[in-house]
Amino acid sequence: MTRTLALETIDKIGQEVALYGWVATVRKHGKIAFIDLRDRSGIVQTVDTSGKIKVGSEDVVKITGIVKKRPEKMINPKLNTGTVELEIKNLKIISKAAELPFPIDTDGYDINEEIRMKYRYIDIRRPRMTKNLKIRSQVTTFIRNFLTKRDFVEVETPMLTKTTPEGARDFVVPSRLQKGKFYALPQSPQQYKQLLMVAGLERYFQIVRCFRDEDPRKDRAYGEFTQLDLEMSFVEQEDILQLTEELFTQIVTAIFPDKQILQSPWPRISHKEALEKYGSDKPDLRVNKNNPDELAFSWTIDFPLFKEQSKDDFFYGAGSAKFAPSHHMFTAPHPDDIRFLDADPLKVRGLQHDLVLNGYEVGGGSIRIHRPEIQEKVFDLIGFTKEQKKQFEHMLTAFTYGVPPHGGIAPGIDRFLMAVLSEPSVREAMAFPTSSSGQTSVMDAPSEITEDQLKELGLILRK
Amino acid sequence: MTRTLALETIDKIGQEVALYGWVATVRKHGKIAFIDLRDRSGIVQTVDTSGKIKVGSEDVVKITGIVKKRPEKMINPKLNTGTVELEIKNLKIISKAAELPFPIDTDGYDINEEIRMKYRYIDIRRPRMTKNLKIRSQVTTFIRNFLTKRDFVEVETPMLTKTTPEGARDFVVPSRLQKGKFYALPQSPQQYKQLLMVAGLERYFQIVRCFRDEDPRKDRAYGEFTQLDLEMSFVEQEDILQLTEELFTQIVTAIFPDKQILQSPWPRISHKEALEKYGSDKPDLRVNKNNPDELAFSWTIDFPLFKEQSKDDFFYGAGSAKFAPSHHMFTAPHPDDIRFLDADPLKVRGLQHDLVLNGYEVGGGSIRIHRPEIQEKVFDLIGFTKEQKKQFEHMLTAFTYGVPPHGGIAPGIDRFLMAVLSEPSVREAMAFPTSSSGQTSVMDAPSEITEDQLKELGLILRK
Repeated sequence: MTRTLALETIDKIGQEVALYGWVATVRKHGKIAFIDLRDRSGIVQTVDTSGKIKVGSEDVVKITGIVKKRPEKMINPKLNTGTVELEIKNLKIISKAAELPFPIDTDGYDINEEIRMKYRYIDIRRPRMTKNLKIRSQVTTFIRNFLTKRDFVEVETPMLTKTTPEGARDFVVPSRLQKGKFYALPQSPQQYKQLLMVAGLERYFQIVRCFRDEDPRKDRAYGEFTQLDLEMSFVEQEDILQLTEELFTQIVTAIFPDKQILQSPWPRISHKEALEKYGSDKPDLRVNKNNPDELAFSWTIDFPLFKEQSKDDFFYGAGSAKFAPSHHMFTAPHPDDIRFLDADPLKVRGLQHDLVLNGYEVGGGSIRIHRPEIQEKVFDLIGFTKEQKKQFEHMLTAFTYGVPPHGGIAPGIDRFLMAVLSEPSVREAMAFPTSSSGQTSVMDAPSEITEDQLKELGLILRK
Repeated sequence: MTRTLALETIDKIGQEVALYGWVATVRKHGKIAFIDLRDRSGIVQTVDTSGKIKVGSEDVVKITGIVKKRPEKMINPKLNTGTVELEIKNLKIISKAAELPFPIDTDGYDINEEIRMKYRYIDIRRPRMTKNLKIRSQVTTFIRNFLTKRDFVEVETPMLTKTTPEGARDFVVPSRLQKGKFYALPQSPQQYKQLLMVAGLERYFQIVRCFRDEDPRKDRAYGEFTQLDLEMSFVEQEDILQLTEELFTQIVTAIFPDKQILQSPWPRISHKEALEKYGSDKPDLRVNKNNPDELAFSWTIDFPLFKEQSKDDFFYGAGSAKFAPSHHMFTAPHPDDIRFLDADPLKVRGLQHDLVLNGYEVGGGSIRIHRPEIQEKVFDLIGFTKEQKKQFEHMLTAFTYGVPPHGGIAPGIDRFLMAVLSEPSVREAMAFPTSSSGQTSVMDAPSEITEDQLKELGLILRK
């Protein structure tokens, strides 16, 4: 007999079917046992009247039986299969389940997170988590279809790449073939996407893993995050804002129909106004912050191109200069402000745009510099040494072979999901997040490697 | 004036339009210059009769002018815009191009590959390369839609994970927060996808980057590759083969209509027969190997579960035992052969299936072990020490909480594209491949890191 899903039973009244799944609950009333069976489509109630079936919660089973229509007053409106139940003819236990380390019929927020992560494969059975993962998949599929329909090409860029002084701390990967040297995991595909514009692709995107070795924060996962990385040629900032706005509006309409976008078109707030009026460059514009259905999108624009370097800044002490890019070093200065680059760099606005949702910075982007002489000027203002500049020589070289004006944006997928799902942490929207202290879910990593591996990589552990 | 794409000119005869793109060629006939403009949609001929325009190949330009219908005998059937040309009113150079390091109007196979990779952003302008990247994007989009329509959920699994003795050599990432310890980059998400089956997702896929530090081979890229990773619960081998066959057949029909699948359903050949009849477990079943349009898909099945350990084997010397998994340690033994596990392990067939295309192994998969006692038995036969077994303890633990029978497959995206595009190397289907000696495209990596970085990671370079 081919398999019937729980949800399909409602169309098979009177038929004999075979169901496969997990025992969600067992409730006994004298000789009668009600066994809720759960599979990927939902839950259906099955009934044993023999009194002989012995089965436990979370056992994996095959149940055959006849689908019966429930009497009107026995209909369960909480189940989408509530109009039927299955009269069990046979139940076979495929895999016994030991007692779970924690309940999965609650939202799970009050369970110690370390334990949830150790048994993440059980934690995901929790309906909230299953739903979050399914929605994540729907969102990324939606994005891909939206963009490919608009001539965007998804291009995969390397994960083993070059360490560059780009902002945050790199993760590095020791090279075995060239001992003493290292690859870096990408903080973002920023340079590659700009090179793809030089290559003439014009419209690139990628849903891509990025890596930053940043110190733990409460609502983050350590080490990795996923962003929608996109870049367009022959566009102005306006084009990027419009495309992004249309994309996110359509995502909300299609996948989160209960959510309300508060203002459309999204408000655009200058960096100066945001600080003065809201005290933050990512203002929370919700009317009622306790209403989880409110989505207050906005743009923050007109950022200063530079800020003063501070000790916390990655570029601190790079050279003699005292400026750090407030976005990143590839952001173009506002055309009206190029004249201030020499005399008063802090006065120059950058063509940066930050996507803000409910007080979170969900993504940032900019129009990029495409003139090599401006790029060099910015490197000088940051104070790059000759050696540091040499690390970006390929970009300056690329810009001599015919480069289109270009720009883009990189919204964070985890961060967007956290905001739209009203979750307290991005980890609630990821399958196997690494804890904020750097411990992986389920598997015990980081872990020691063998002396042979160290030798092969040309490394010694510092005592 | 809003931008018009080259291809859109054919519908705008008599109109004034603005085009943006690259100068593909300049041909002068006396005072008349024919300037081919290239953008993402194609090429259109523009004409300057003023004799005053000075422009060079690969300059990025904006051209405004009037679209004219070409006289019947001037139509260029080689261009999809061959029925029109643009009479230039104004040409503005947006970005000058220096002379390219190599031509891009050839197929490029005869150009030194190191040079192609150094200037990959120019190499991609080559029509063959642009086409390969666009097709790659179409293929992955097609796969995602095919699977999501069938209830599959795309789940992202971690890149910073645990080193395990799983087959090939790991890339490792030193931990800053736990000095002396390391993450490993995944060789495949094998364990995570099995854990997602324990989690009840039932149908998982991911188009995912995988990492193996393997010694260089001519037709490969070093270090990274991309696979379609998929796993299903409550299925038999037959279900996986059928789904895969339908997926690839539909990809070929939709994206490679000129290609012919030689046999359908795909032949299924036992490992024994493949070796005896073809001398290879990935036989090339094409009738005419010089015909690039022939696609000979086949399955190799009934592999032995174990082979004898050899010195080349990753498990060599793992313990006192002498067996190595011929696929991987999670592959289920054929139910008819479980009885041989004790007495004659080499006689046991595994439920493994290899997808073969034109003599390449494009992917492998299997029905997995879901009974913890069988999994332990296999670990013992490989000769895992207690310590090595401990590294997989989480899998054995997971299997005690109700695990569905499951299995899957992982076709290589790069390898499939190489075969279907008749390319000599997977590198021709990747944007920025790493050379077989481990050197990255465009950027100079691997490279040295600073003493401060080494210190922060608790590492010393071996002299």
